[in-house]
Amino acid sequence: MKRIVFMAAFLAAAINAGSQNAEPVDDFKPSPVNQPGHAYPMVDSQGRVKAQLFAPDAKYVQLDIGGVKYDMVKDEEGYWTGVSNPQDVGFHYYQLVVDGAMVPDPGSLFFFGACRYGSGIEIPAPDSDIFALKNVPHGQTHEIYFNSPSTGEERRAYVYTPAEYSKNPDKRYPVLYLQHGYCENETSWPLQGRVNFIMDNLIAEGKAVPFIVVMTYGMTNDVQMGGLRNFDIKPFQTVLVDELIPYIDSNFRTLANRENRAMAGLSMGGFETRLVTLARPDVFSRYGLFSGGTYSPDDLKDHKDVKLVFMGCGSKEFPDGVNNAATALNEAGFNAVSYVSEGTAHEFHTWRRCLYEMAQLLFK
Amino acid sequence: MKRIVFMAAFLAAAINAGSQNAEPVDDFKPSPVNQPGHAYPMVDSQGRVKAQLFAPDAKYVQLDIGGVKYDMVKDEEGYWTGVSNPQDVGFHYYQLVVDGAMVPDPGSLFFFGACRYGSGIEIPAPDSDIFALKNVPHGQTHEIYFNSPSTGEERRAYVYTPAEYSKNPDKRYPVLYLQHGYCENETSWPLQGRVNFIMDNLIAEGKAVPFIVVMTYGMTNDVQMGGLRNFDIKPFQTVLVDELIPYIDSNFRTLANRENRAMAGLSMGGFETRLVTLARPDVFSRYGLFSGGTYSPDDLKDHKDVKLVFMGCGSKEFPDGVNNAATALNEAGFNAVSYVSEGTAHEFHTWRRCLYEMAQLLFK
Repeated sequence: MKRIVFMAAFLAAAINAGSQNAEPVDDFKPSPVNQPGHAYPMVDSQGRVKAQLFAPDAKYVQLDIGGVKYDMVKDEEGYWTGVSNPQDVGFHYYQLVVDGAMVPDPGSLFFFGACRYGSGIEIPAPDSDIFALKNVPHGQTHEIYFNSPSTGEERRAYVYTPAEYSKNPDKRYPVLYLQHGYCENETSWPLQGRVNFIMDNLIAEGKAVPFIVVMTYGMTNDVQMGGLRNFDIKPFQTVLVDELIPYIDSNFRTLANRENRAMAGLSMGGFETRLVTLARPDVFSRYGLFSGGTYSPDDLKDHKDVKLVFMGCGSKEFPDGVNNAATALNEAGFNAVSYVSEGTAHEFHTWRRCLYEMAQLLFK
Repeated sequence: MKRIVFMAAFLAAAINAGSQNAEPVDDFKPSPVNQPGHAYPMVDSQGRVKAQLFAPDAKYVQLDIGGVKYDMVKDEEGYWTGVSNPQDVGFHYYQLVVDGAMVPDPGSLFFFGACRYGSGIEIPAPDSDIFALKNVPHGQTHEIYFNSPSTGEERRAYVYTPAEYSKNPDKRYPVLYLQHGYCENETSWPLQGRVNFIMDNLIAEGKAVPFIVVMTYGMTNDVQMGGLRNFDIKPFQTVLVDELIPYIDSNFRTLANRENRAMAGLSMGGFETRLVTLARPDVFSRYGLFSGGTYSPDDLKDHKDVKLVFMGCGSKEFPDGVNNAATALNEAGFNAVSYVSEGTAHEFHTWRRCLYEMAQLLFK
C-alpha cells in the first residue's frame, strides 16, 4: 500500500504547538489573515491566539475559538485583550462575544464557514510554504456565473486555470471538480483553501501537471443536523454533471472526457463526491475524499477502470479509517492512496494538505 | 454640449426616499446584500434601514450609518432593533456599536470601504436593474497576481472579460483601467461596484461594445487626511503603466495600443486618473473622472487627439462643476461628456451609474 505520511521539517514545533503545558513565550505576531494595518488578532509560536477589541462600555468580552470562550480583560483605555490555549496549526474560524453579542472580529479578514461570513485566523504551520504567495508564474481564479435550468438560477463558480493556460491557446487541460464542506460555500476553497497558491507552487516546482480546478456551491447548507442519511444528492448532481460540466467544457479549454476529469471534496463535500462518483462512473476517473469517508472494494466493483482513489484526513480524526480502506482497495487491485495530515483535525489545513498531496498524483 | 441627465422611471420614488418627512410605512425587506438566510438588516421603500442584533447583556447598541448613530431598543429576549432615517438609493457602508465596540453587523455581507472590510447595505434604486444578475451571457472576473519589481511584491488585480471572450479565441479587445477611491481597494469595483453585472447587461442589450476592465489597488490608503497635495503618483503610475499593463497585454487578448485603452476612476481614483492620463497621453485615449475632479482645456492642450473625456458626479455633489467643465471642453473642440447621477452623493451608486454611462460611449 502506498501511504504518504507527512514528515514536517519542524515536526517538533508542531507537536509543541499542540501541547497546553508548554511554557508561554511572548512572541505574538499579527495573524497573516488580518485586515490591512491591523496588529490584532495575533498568534504566537505555540499556536495561541491573542485578540483585542476596543469596547469601553462593555461588561464582558470573550474570544470564542475552537469551541471554547476565553474571557478577555479590560485595560484603563477600554481595550479588552484575551489569549486562547494553543490551537492546531492552520486555519480556524472564530468570533468575539461582546456582552452576549456574537460578532466578527473587525481585525480579521472574513471567510465563509460555520454557515456565515466571519473571522478567520491562521496559525503558522511548518508547511505554510505550500500555500504562500511567491514570485512564481501565477494562474488565475475566474469568478463565473452559469445558467442552471434545474434550479432556475444563475449560479456562481470559481475556476482556477494554471499560469500557462493563457500562453498556450491551443492546449487543453484536465479538470478537478473540488467541493467544500457543510456550512461552507464556493468561496471556501479559493479563500481559506488557497487553491490558487497551492497549485501555482506545485506547478512551478514541477510537482504537479497543470490542470484546471472548478469549485461551486454543493447545495449542502440546508441539511438539518443529523439529516445526512436523508440527503438527496440528485439536485446537486444535476447542477454539477448536467449544467456546470457542460458549461466548463464549452467555456474553457478542457480535455472533456472521463479520463481527464477528477472529483474530490472535503467533509460533506467528500460525502457528495462519493455519491456522485459512484452514481456516474462515466463522468470521473479519479476520486478524492478529504475527511469525507472511504470507498470499499465492494463500492467500486463496477469501477474497475478508476485511475486513482485518494482518501485523507487529519491525524486527530480517523487515520486508521483511511489507511485501512486504502489497504483493502490496494489488495483488491485498485490504485488507492491514503494520507494523514499530522497534528490537524477536521479543519482547513488538513484539506489544503490533502489537495497538495492529491494534486501531485493527478493526471499523470 | 452633450449632457446626459439620468431620467429614472421612478424618479418620484427616489425623491420620496430622500425626504425625511415622509409618512413611515411598514414594508421592510431584507437587504439584497445580506448573508445567506439572514432577515436583518432590512430596508423599506423610503430608504430607511432597520438593523437587529442579539446582545442580551449590552447596555446600549447603535446603528451607525451615514454619519449618524441611531439608538437601538432592546426587547424581552435580548434582541436590539433600530431604524435609521431614509438613506440615498444605492450602496452604503455601515457598522454597529455595542457598548462602545464598533463591529461589523453579522447579518450583512462584507465589503472593503472606509479602509476596512465591514458591513454594507443596498437601498433599492429605481435603476437597480442595471447591475442585477440576469439570465444573460456572463463574462468572467479573473483574480490575477502580477509581479511588481518596483514594489517587490506579487500584486493582485481583477480582470473582467466579456462573455464572448472565451468563444472568440482570435479576437482582441480594448481595455478600461478602472480605479477605486480612498480607503477602498481592488475588490471595491468588482464587489460593491458590480462591474461584471453592469457590463454583462450592457453588452447583452447591445448598449456597449465588449471590452475588458482591469481593476487593481491604487496605492491610495496610506495618504493622511489633507495630504492629497503631497500625494506622489509616481509609485502607482509605475505599477500601472510599466508593470500591470504589460502583464495584461501579454496574458489577455487585448488591443494593445493607446487607441484602445481607457482609464477612469472614482474620487481619489479620479484624481489618480487625471494625473496619469495627463502625464502619459501616449498610453490612454479616453479618460473618465467619477466624482473625481475635472479637466480644463488648458490641461488638455497637448491632448488634441483624446477621444473621450467623461466627467460625472452625484446631484448631491458638484454637478455644476462637471457640467461647466464639459461645456468648456466642448467649446474648445473636445469630445467631453458630463453626467449627473440624480439623488445620490459621494457613494458607490453614483459611480456604478457613471460606469454604466461611460461604458456606452467607450471604444465606439
